Amino acid sequence: MATTAQTRGGRGHLVIGQSGGATAVINASLVGAVRAALETDAIDGIYGARYGIEGVLNRDLIDLRAQPAATWDALRGTPSAALGSCRYRLREGDAERALDMLRALGVRYFIYIGGNDSADTALQLAAAARAADYDLRVVCVPKTIDNDLPDTDHCPGYGSAARFIALATMDSALCTEAMPSHYPVKIIEVMGRDAGWLAAAAALGKEREEDAPHLLYLPERPLTASEFLADVQAAYDGYGMVVAVVAETVRDENGRPLGELGHQGTDAFGHPLLGGAAHYLVGLVRGELGLRSRYDKPGDLQRMSSASVSVTDREEAERVGWAAVREAVAGTTGKMITLVRRPGPEYACDTGLTDLERVANERRPLPPEFLTPDGRGVTRAFREYALPLLGEPLPRYARLRPARGYDAQ
Amino acid sequence: MATTAQTRGGRGHLVIGQSGGATAVINASLVGAVRAALETDAIDGIYGARYGIEGVLNRDLIDLRAQPAATWDALRGTPSAALGSCRYRLREGDAERALDMLRALGVRYFIYIGGNDSADTALQLAAAARAADYDLRVVCVPKTIDNDLPDTDHCPGYGSAARFIALATMDSALCTEAMPSHYPVKIIEVMGRDAGWLAAAAALGKEREEDAPHLLYLPERPLTASEFLADVQAAYDGYGMVVAVVAETVRDENGRPLGELGHQGTDAFGHPLLGGAAHYLVGLVRGELGLRSRYDKPGDLQRMSSASVSVTDREEAERVGWAAVREAVAGTTGKMITLVRRPGPEYACDTGLTDLERVANERRPLPPEFLTPDGRGVTRAFREYALPLLGEPLPRYARLRPARGYDAQ
Repeated sequence: MATTAQTRGGRGHLVIGQSGGATAVINASLVGAVRAALETDAIDGIYGARYGIEGVLNRDLIDLRAQPAATWDALRGTPSAALGSCRYRLREGDAERALDMLRALGVRYFIYIGGNDSADTALQLAAAARAADYDLRVVCVPKTIDNDLPDTDHCPGYGSAARFIALATMDSALCTEAMPSHYPVKIIEVMGRDAGWLAAAAALGKEREEDAPHLLYLPERPLTASEFLADVQAAYDGYGMVVAVVAETVRDENGRPLGELGHQGTDAFGHPLLGGAAHYLVGLVRGELGLRSRYDKPGDLQRMSSASVSVTDREEAERVGWAAVREAVAGTTGKMITLVRRPGPEYACDTGLTDLERVANERRPLPPEFLTPDGRGVTRAFREYALPLLGEPLPRYARLRPARGYDAQ
Repeated sequence: MATTAQTRGGRGHLVIGQSGGATAVINASLVGAVRAALETDAIDGIYGARYGIEGVLNRDLIDLRAQPAATWDALRGTPSAALGSCRYRLREGDAERALDMLRALGVRYFIYIGGNDSADTALQLAAAARAADYDLRVVCVPKTIDNDLPDTDHCPGYGSAARFIALATMDSALCTEAMPSHYPVKIIEVMGRDAGWLAAAAALGKEREEDAPHLLYLPERPLTASEFLADVQAAYDGYGMVVAVVAETVRDENGRPLGELGHQGTDAFGHPLLGGAAHYLVGLVRGELGLRSRYDKPGDLQRMSSASVSVTDREEAERVGWAAVREAVAGTTGKMITLVRRPGPEYACDTGLTDLERVANERRPLPPEFLTPDGRGVTRAFREYALPLLGEPLPRYARLRPARGYDAQ
């Protein structure tokens, strides 16, 4: 879909929606969009759709101009989706109904903050507008902790989740290291779709061979019980402790999620509802190897934690929200804002654009150069890519030197 | 055990150990002890015992004077126990063996950072010294996220863990609130021994009736499957979503831990090895109520998270470490440092002393005035007690007002 000409109808209303899994910074994108809208004469009413496209279909909107001015600063630091989010897949006729509703209200601008599935929704809405010859500017704002959207250097939400997972692995591993004889095996379960972007972040705090994670299981490769047990035993023999990070989306050799709790069916977009791999693997370690094992499953904390937000991620999330409104006002439609990394040693990103068709239908896998040949570790190239996204440098923890002055006395 | 007279043997060495479950601030106590030792002429060598009392028994010590000076600032911000920790229960003759080892090295001061079990170890060591008429000053430094040591206002380690759990509940609940139709039921599993101090902290961010946690299960009262399911259904009917916080130590009507993974036996002190309640309850909700449910089990993150450390907790942890060395040098033995809250509206604590006999044998339960009559909620008195321990105020998250300007157009 090409960029259309400058607005025909002059001023119009803006509707903003948030969609898909929430993140710690998706509200920063909302704030960026609202602030850009407040600054332009092209936009009249500014509305938020409750629960994404469902709010449009149900005529459930919030007047964002009516919010107290202090809201926006506070919301910038509030995790999750303040408008409410959805995983609603449009049905036959929904796009046309949504368009009718928007047109009846005089809406000319539609900003949708979300991932692949949200791009699919936005694409259908843009197509309906074009078919109806109604000048609706539809621009998406990238958002996903899974970091798997195409054509953007990275996705807002990823940096904060990656920071959480990197810190969680560092912190939790220190606990295992302090008392390896008590609980020698720790398993940390990490979210992520079919690409291991987030689980790979567990290795970002690793500096020495013996640092955690000792084992890293990304969804790119299947994992069998026997391979896992052999790995754990070998790591235990080598380090006297094992911290294994496992993506909840890792499958076994038959393509089945690990652990029974995985089988809660699928969501509206056909994605399996997962969770339970670590619980299963802990039982396996205990039963088969006789090693005490426990697990951390941070669950929604990894997408939500306000204490681990990357300042870079939050700033970029606000910036892409801002850019989406500026682009829509300038005439852009059918696009998603992207982040484009500048070349050079100093980290910096500009915003760019890509087509919603691509976002709705493509997934960005972890490139081979980010993974070690065995698919069980990350490369220096990945570290150089990912570390700037985490904002402040990771803490440098101290260790004591094993000096033994008393032997000399 | 009474305070003994000023040192008979003049200068002597100091040994410091860390024991029991690690915390995010137990290293701050080590740093406080080391800094106090570096400032006094009474102490010659400063050694760290590797893995607590096991390091004494195995003559596995680290020379802390040999560490680079920058170590101490960095270690103050490093979670977990840098010396290594243990859950070793002294056997027949161990206390005498440990004493012989300390005496052979010329150690006059022994500082043990830990909880009830560590106090038991320290007490035996002090008794062995007294029986042998050897002037060993044994002083404990309180440490536990469980907050259940007697005679101290609170325990270093608790404030940071409580901050983590309060934030985790606030953050994760926002995720459920954003998409209640997708995953309406969230269960958060929290650590803690037989008193619900830490699980109770989940309510510290709750400001409105409809805020999470909607359900709070402390170990003070048993929980049956039927009661849990009825509670979840009622909360779901009332709020359209449910965030339930459950202590991993909650028992059923027969005194058994919830969930099969709980049955990993007991540790050296007879404490059951728990974990798995949330996994079990999620299956129950899904199977019996047909509601989609998932869980966060932060596990060791709640004791370790550097991003959620309470600045107050860290400062106090350092201070009690410092006080222990000062007390030992002044002649105190057989005691644990305590925190004594000053009366008045402004939060402040001084340090005090209590007998190791009491610490080794008593547990501090949640007082009745901190719990609502049904045992399923916390009172204002608990909030006033606990909030200052969390350091910086909890964040104030923004919510959008449901204003609907478009209806008027």
